Amino acid sequence: MNRLPTKEDAAELIARVRARRPRVHCLMNTVVQKFTADGISAIGAIPSMTSSMEEIADFIAKADALTINLGTLDAERRKVIRLAVDVATAGGKPWILDPVHCDYSPTRLAFARELITLGPTVVRGNRAEMELIGETGASLRIMTGAVDHLSDAGRSVKVENGHAFMAVVTGTGCLSGGVIAAFLAVEKDALKAATAALCTTGVSAELAAVHARGPGSFEPAFLDALAALGPDDLNSHARINHETT
Amino acid sequence: MNRLPTKEDAAELIARVRARRPRVHCLMNTVVQKFTADGISAIGAIPSMTSSMEEIADFIAKADALTINLGTLDAERRKVIRLAVDVATAGGKPWILDPVHCDYSPTRLAFARELITLGPTVVRGNRAEMELIGETGASLRIMTGAVDHLSDAGRSVKVENGHAFMAVVTGTGCLSGGVIAAFLAVEKDALKAATAALCTTGVSAELAAVHARGPGSFEPAFLDALAALGPDDLNSHARINHETT
Amino acid sequence: MNRLPTKEDAAELIARVRARRPRVHCLMNTVVQKFTADGISAIGAIPSMTSSMEEIADFIAKADALTINLGTLDAERRKVIRLAVDVATAGGKPWILDPVHCDYSPTRLAFARELITLGPTVVRGNRAEMELIGETGASLRIMTGAVDHLSDAGRSVKVENGHAFMAVVTGTGCLSGGVIAAFLAVEKDALKAATAALCTTGVSAELAAVHARGPGSFEPAFLDALAALGPDDLNSHARINHETT
Repeated sequence: MNRLPTKEDAAELIARVRARRPRVHCLMNTVVQKFTADGISAIGAIPSMTSSMEEIADFIAKADALTINLGTLDAERRKVIRLAVDVATAGGKPWILDPVHCDYSPTRLAFARELITLGPTVVRGNRAEMELIGETGASLRIMTGAVDHLSDAGRSVKVENGHAFMAVVTGTGCLSGGVIAAFLAVEKDALKAATAALCTTGVSAELAAVHARGPGSFEPAFLDALAALGPDDLNSHARINHETT
Repeated sequence: MNRLPTKEDAAELIARVRARRPRVHCLMNTVVQKFTADGISAIGAIPSMTSSMEEIADFIAKADALTINLGTLDAERRKVIRLAVDVATAGGKPWILDPVHCDYSPTRLAFARELITLGPTVVRGNRAEMELIGETGASLRIMTGAVDHLSDAGRSVKVENGHAFMAVVTGTGCLSGGVIAAFLAVEKDALKAATAALCTTGVSAELAAVHARGPGSFEPAFLDALAALGPDDLNSHARINHETT
Repeated sequence: MNRLPTKEDAAELIARVRARRPRVHCLMNTVVQKFTADGISAIGAIPSMTSSMEEIADFIAKADALTINLGTLDAERRKVIRLAVDVATAGGKPWILDPVHCDYSPTRLAFARELITLGPTVVRGNRAEMELIGETGASLRIMTGAVDHLSDAGRSVKVENGHAFMAVVTGTGCLSGGVIAAFLAVEKDALKAATAALCTTGVSAELAAVHARGPGSFEPAFLDALAALGPDDLNSHARINHETT
């Protein structure tokens, strides 16, 4: 079993993402496509967003990781997601499932459960979503909130960074899914990658809040902070704790 | 007949929205989904955005009000809108119709007229749109512009708040439709609810303009102002007048 | 053959766009629809965005120019684009093709080549895209990058304005396509129109960067600068050079 991730690991991984510039393909709800793309670019990775049947295989082939977000889901998008997962799995590429609002719709929940049987590298949701999802079969399970709880087969970690503005700005969770995918692209240990990613978004949010008058100005400040964040910021500000059960 | 709404009513209603946190489902054009969602969140309400046939009934069932915006309309979306209106009507939930750009397209205008026969709580458009729409059959008719004109069966009101930047930023009118829906969710008198909603967006725009260098920086400042706006701001700045005909 | 465009031409054309307020219809990827619309509004033109088969002909009929961006392409959108080009061509309206990411997908590249046979006024792409596209048959060919290279049948021009933040913010190239369309609507000489448009976005980016802490705050600052840019700014800051081959 791997050891527990530290803030020094997080610092090393943000530098690795910026050096390698992984490509992240996003099957993202239509509401937050630009915000997610800007967040992925800000950390030095390269986003793409198409969701058409004819193009998805070519875009996944060029990508290093995949994030699948179930917002604004319809029949066509379900087909595309199944194909994307097939191509990613065949290529050995990591993918994260974000079953957003599966607590609103039984059909969305059923589709989330179908995807879980296909072996996502990570499943990430809020408490309501993760409780409905139940067992994930994923390498790594993340329940986000004021504190983020991450657990794999034998380890548990809490990330205590973040800011209340994140809950008022639509899409910060979706964007975090894209950032996690970028870290998965450069690190095989999913717990280590996701811990570093959530420290990156959480510390950036804390630094951004200093410059924000409210949730509106928080959004550009958050992107600025993501773009500026370096290893030293993570060494100074990351708050990673072991779970006590 | 209800009395005419006052700025004290507006002040009371913004407090009620923030206390009750109503859910607003949006069938919103794809251009401004995030901006609208952020505006609804900023006033303390909870937005959702899906527009798929399989999911819409479940999302409307969880919502307290519905906004229907006809931008980026296609055949699939027309089907979803009809279903959404059926579910909202069956559940006694208020809904607002925003027939944006129905003056550009005869097919869009025909669909707007079809929806009007289904009894929206509110119809909101600019002068060109409302003149084409003609009689609405809605409880409340709103013609927005530099001054907003609201009228129901027996009453007429003008809201004189707002700022010229609103016309340059795509989606401020669409966002206002979402805000009106949030107020309709907490107040049965549609004229009182919509007057308060338009004072909320208009006063926020005036306060935001002080911090803006142009339409770009106006947008985050507007969301900041919506998030900060309290009853006192409406008591001090709302400009509600009776129509003189 | 027309003479080469100058910065005085650019200054004259931004004034003409602001005076005439041309309508620009955008068949734009779903990621950056709002950003593009805000950019077009900021220079004083009027954007529209629908992409449905029933509505597109009516919207193009009201438009003065058309921009076609191949991001988030699918079968339905290909049909709509073909119809839009037919209507624009029949009406003698200029159109620009932006074959974004055609280097990722053979099906997208094939569609870009099909569109090129229909005679776009302008084709604009980055180096990778333009090299794959090959001969365009367009009146004007633009390869954008740190320096933009424009060439028609007999003339070549370089525009050396811009800022590195443009590469980190998703959609600045797409937005530039919309701005070029607005200039094509008011000037028949496509090289002169596009040179002025790229000076407008490039100088605005330079002026915006002064107010930005990073790519997040650059975005609203860029829209502010586009809205404020006047003929004097172009006379002072535009950098147009002849190609030396």
